[in-house]
Amino acid sequence: MTDFGLRVLDRTECDAAIATQRVGRVALPVLDHPLVLPVVYALMDGDVVFRTAPGEKLIAAALQRSVAFEIDDYDVESRSGWSVNVVGTIEEIVDRDELERARALDLPCWAGPLRDRYVRIRTRAVTGRAIDPDNPRP
Amino acid sequence: MTDFGLRVLDRTECDAAIATQRVGRVALPVLDHPLVLPVVYALMDGDVVFRTAPGEKLIAAALQRSVAFEIDDYDVESRSGWSVNVVGTIEEIVDRDELERARALDLPCWAGPLRDRYVRIRTRAVTGRAIDPDNPRP
Repeated sequence: MTDFGLRVLDRTECDAAIATQRVGRVALPVLDHPLVLPVVYALMDGDVVFRTAPGEKLIAAALQRSVAFEIDDYDVESRSGWSVNVVGTIEEIVDRDELERARALDLPCWAGPLRDRYVRIRTRAVTGRAIDPDNPRP
Repeated sequence: MTDFGLRVLDRTECDAAIATQRVGRVALPVLDHPLVLPVVYALMDGDVVFRTAPGEKLIAAALQRSVAFEIDDYDVESRSGWSVNVVGTIEEIVDRDELERARALDLPCWAGPLRDRYVRIRTRAVTGRAIDPDNPRP
């Protein structure tokens, strides 16, 4: 399916894309606007999991807000790229067994050792799009 | 200022960072959650401007929604990176003079020739953070 020069990715393509990246961006509703924060992530039971510290992401998790998690990759030279959005509920991992499994993911902590809280995004919907190389460009 | 291993960027640093990138991500409020879509952008009067086609971004512009525009850059090897959020109102450019100036930005169209609508994000707030290399990491 093509939509204004973008090819809509199917779920299998989206899942494959999610597995290729290390860093994604979580978009939280904050006050009257979204806020987008990069995180290092891994997958657990098909859900995005990341470490965090007290702040906007943990507040959103406490409130079980609906968030988007976005990953993309692009190449300026060839003007090609794709992006995927995972939409779901953000929740802190508090169950002991689940927390043990999250810690076992060995998620690296780029920004200091204090990020000992784990959150997951319970996937509700996954969508993705890619620039269609067959589409004529000006 | 350091916040859990992240250094808060001042406005001058944020503005400099925005000028280094070609692709950013606009986070729109859609139904009950955000949606994050990459765009090729340029700056006009200090505001982010991009081309688009009928769809979620143009709907958000019609509704003059508050959005976030995010750019970032990171390096997996050195575990370093930064991100900037521009928060503002998204609006379609309809004024004839302004539209002429937007077209003169020569924004490339990666995904087909149909993206002949121009939108701007009227900047309200700019925030940024960088991983502090002086912070000890595990």
